[in-house]
Amino acid sequence: MAHLTERDVCLNITTLEAKDIRWPTSLGAHGSDAMHTDPDYSCVYVTISTAEGTYGNGLTFTLGRGTDIVLLAVRAMKRFVENRTTDSIYRNFAQFWRELTSESQLRWIGPEKGVTHLAVAAIINALWDLWGKIRGVPVWRLLTDMDPEELVSVIDFRYITDAITPEKAINILKTSQHDRQTRINELVAKGYPAYTTQVGWLGYNDDQIRTLCRKYLSKGFTAFKIKVGQNVENDINRCRLVREEIGWENKLMVDANQIWDVNEAIAWMEQLKDFKLLWIEEPTSPDDVLGHKKIADGMRKHGIGVATGEMCCNRVLFKQFLQAGALDFCQIDSARIGGVNEILAVYLMAKKFNIKICPHAGGVGLCEMVQHLQMWDYTSVSGTMTDRMVEFVDQQHEQFIHPAVINAAACYVAPTQPGYSTELKPEAIAMFEYPNGSEWKRMFAEGTFSKEDY
Amino acid sequence: MAHLTERDVCLNITTLEAKDIRWPTSLGAHGSDAMHTDPDYSCVYVTISTAEGTYGNGLTFTLGRGTDIVLLAVRAMKRFVENRTTDSIYRNFAQFWRELTSESQLRWIGPEKGVTHLAVAAIINALWDLWGKIRGVPVWRLLTDMDPEELVSVIDFRYITDAITPEKAINILKTSQHDRQTRINELVAKGYPAYTTQVGWLGYNDDQIRTLCRKYLSKGFTAFKIKVGQNVENDINRCRLVREEIGWENKLMVDANQIWDVNEAIAWMEQLKDFKLLWIEEPTSPDDVLGHKKIADGMRKHGIGVATGEMCCNRVLFKQFLQAGALDFCQIDSARIGGVNEILAVYLMAKKFNIKICPHAGGVGLCEMVQHLQMWDYTSVSGTMTDRMVEFVDQQHEQFIHPAVINAAACYVAPTQPGYSTELKPEAIAMFEYPNGSEWKRMFAEGTFSKEDY
Repeated sequence: MAHLTERDVCLNITTLEAKDIRWPTSLGAHGSDAMHTDPDYSCVYVTISTAEGTYGNGLTFTLGRGTDIVLLAVRAMKRFVENRTTDSIYRNFAQFWRELTSESQLRWIGPEKGVTHLAVAAIINALWDLWGKIRGVPVWRLLTDMDPEELVSVIDFRYITDAITPEKAINILKTSQHDRQTRINELVAKGYPAYTTQVGWLGYNDDQIRTLCRKYLSKGFTAFKIKVGQNVENDINRCRLVREEIGWENKLMVDANQIWDVNEAIAWMEQLKDFKLLWIEEPTSPDDVLGHKKIADGMRKHGIGVATGEMCCNRVLFKQFLQAGALDFCQIDSARIGGVNEILAVYLMAKKFNIKICPHAGGVGLCEMVQHLQMWDYTSVSGTMTDRMVEFVDQQHEQFIHPAVINAAACYVAPTQPGYSTELKPEAIAMFEYPNGSEWKRMFAEGTFSKEDY
Repeated sequence: MAHLTERDVCLNITTLEAKDIRWPTSLGAHGSDAMHTDPDYSCVYVTISTAEGTYGNGLTFTLGRGTDIVLLAVRAMKRFVENRTTDSIYRNFAQFWRELTSESQLRWIGPEKGVTHLAVAAIINALWDLWGKIRGVPVWRLLTDMDPEELVSVIDFRYITDAITPEKAINILKTSQHDRQTRINELVAKGYPAYTTQVGWLGYNDDQIRTLCRKYLSKGFTAFKIKVGQNVENDINRCRLVREEIGWENKLMVDANQIWDVNEAIAWMEQLKDFKLLWIEEPTSPDDVLGHKKIADGMRKHGIGVATGEMCCNRVLFKQFLQAGALDFCQIDSARIGGVNEILAVYLMAKKFNIKICPHAGGVGLCEMVQHLQMWDYTSVSGTMTDRMVEFVDQQHEQFIHPAVINAAACYVAPTQPGYSTELKPEAIAMFEYPNGSEWKRMFAEGTFSKEDY
């Protein structure tokens, strides 16, 4: 049970509204990778309103087609939220989370994965935004200020007690409490290190890559990630030219976005082993724990780590990746598994198994949300930034009222506004709501997009 | 590439229609288990029509709420099927399957799991029904009559080549070809053994259970499965009274429907170990390969096998369950993973790892479909029925034009009609299409159900 205090004014939730919002990013090659060749960055955007006027926003990231399917799933879950008090949710948040994820008929079409879990993420993220606003603090402070028992009380431990129990989780948090204020001060002063994925989308040519390397070097970045996996000669060429631009002291990571089979991944990476790569990301199916374990074993002699997680579907898969030693960098996503509550469980398991978390971001709103989580990890769980960083992609931030901000040292600036940084500007919604936003009407009229595309 | 012959008249596909059909089974306690307390057995029902008049039907099973979400996903995939020729699909069926499952924007909301994969199953199942009708044979014969190369050509081996390659799969099938005609004859003469789940849904009381045991004994059944997991004393009582009714020579299995954590499963089953149980089914999360491995290891000394698979989301998870030795009975489902093509891969991997397949059935149409797959396993893969059987639940069969039939020896009768046995009666659709079928209109009018329930 959460220890609700006078900080928690009890509000009366009236409505949960959800919108399908899509940006036509496929018109550039932004965001393109080996498996997702033409993404239209999109989201299902949730607004939970209260009778008292305070509201929370949450979202889940999508790639265009299918956003309407997730939207329908969110609407199927509205009845769990509407006409409740905030106290009735936050006072037993783990139980609420389980009700939402284990609804006796809906769970059949999951369970806890894919469309229905993305829908849960949007709703849960909106509830955390609302909770932050109720307490008047950004979510990273909300989490940091919770005592260990309160924080652990929001987690549903079903299916993970063989890896971590509530008692063990509380112990981890208690052990990490020393010097917390020092770390908070440091975060506020310096921010949290970011890396850029923006130099090497697959759709970019050599000149674009060189230009972007220089641009991000000049912005203070020291860690760079590029996409690989369509053609090995091309990959060798891309790695070589990025190394020419960034040198050998900066970090370089590569990302295959699930293109390979297990043995293929090992063979392909053999050909990239001389580029001093920090990690190979998503070498194969996001569901393949044992496959990643084999790849990780194969990469060890080259000093290349294995990273995955952005499409890991829930805490049960993450648990196994951690138990098996199948990854070196755990890339939680803020809107794939069931929102903050479930992600906290992954952070605590990662700490127990001594695995570094480097969150996935980019997309729409992922940078905005995940910065909060990783800052809490620094203040309250791992207590270190060593070999940890958060992905940064400079897209769609201008759509948000309180966007993620990168400082001159290429660090995420600690958010100060209450909530989860998830509120879109009204004009963004007016322009890009699908299919009736003003930009979509214009593009359909001009023939830039056809409705048959969706 | 499939070796299309003159058997394969090329048809022109015109439309793919999908319907949401729900039966109000929650009004009884039929189908109730520890996690699914009030299922309304439902399906998304697909009809693929051709200009020539031949059509195929396929379905995916659901539990009521959420059927509309899967329906929307099916409709999002229509464009892959409509206005194509059947040749363009069957000639390179593996490639078609990959296009459907790896669509560059839609895959983000899966991939290959949950709502989108259920949608794929309904479409792929309809295409197999159509193929059977084109060749004029039931699907089990269609599969049996394919030469090994043709059969293997329909499988997308992405992500499983570390466990099985096309070459290995062809070898398995070639090795199993001897005496095939003898097995076909035996199947036609005797059918394939079934077991019943109908004696012990959680909602049933002791008298109901005893009565049902006697009923199914008198129908020739020798294997019985009951639900467990809500209360251990109750479970002990239920096991005891079922054993009193069926004796100790008949087979008894128990099914927990994912209710336990890993260590809890082991501890709970310790209390049921004296009932000579053939298997414990779904002891924990369907995603937990390593957890099932631990449970399987814990059960071995009691001679209890571990069974799972009905909610295993794709071939990558099945691959790991098999590689890890995490199950003793592999329970493929005909409408959870991506239809026949993907299921064939699981059968072939199970053969390689020497694990018995005992398919999940019940629901709506699952018995109808899965009988074909298991009969093909007998003729062409495992070549044996030893310790293998197919679940049977006597519900919703009367809704089908060619329902699964159980003979006096409690065996599935080999289907003789062309196709996949998936065609619903027109009157079933007229009555139970949701929400405008005649029965739903009546129930809404009478207040038996409220639209707010969904």
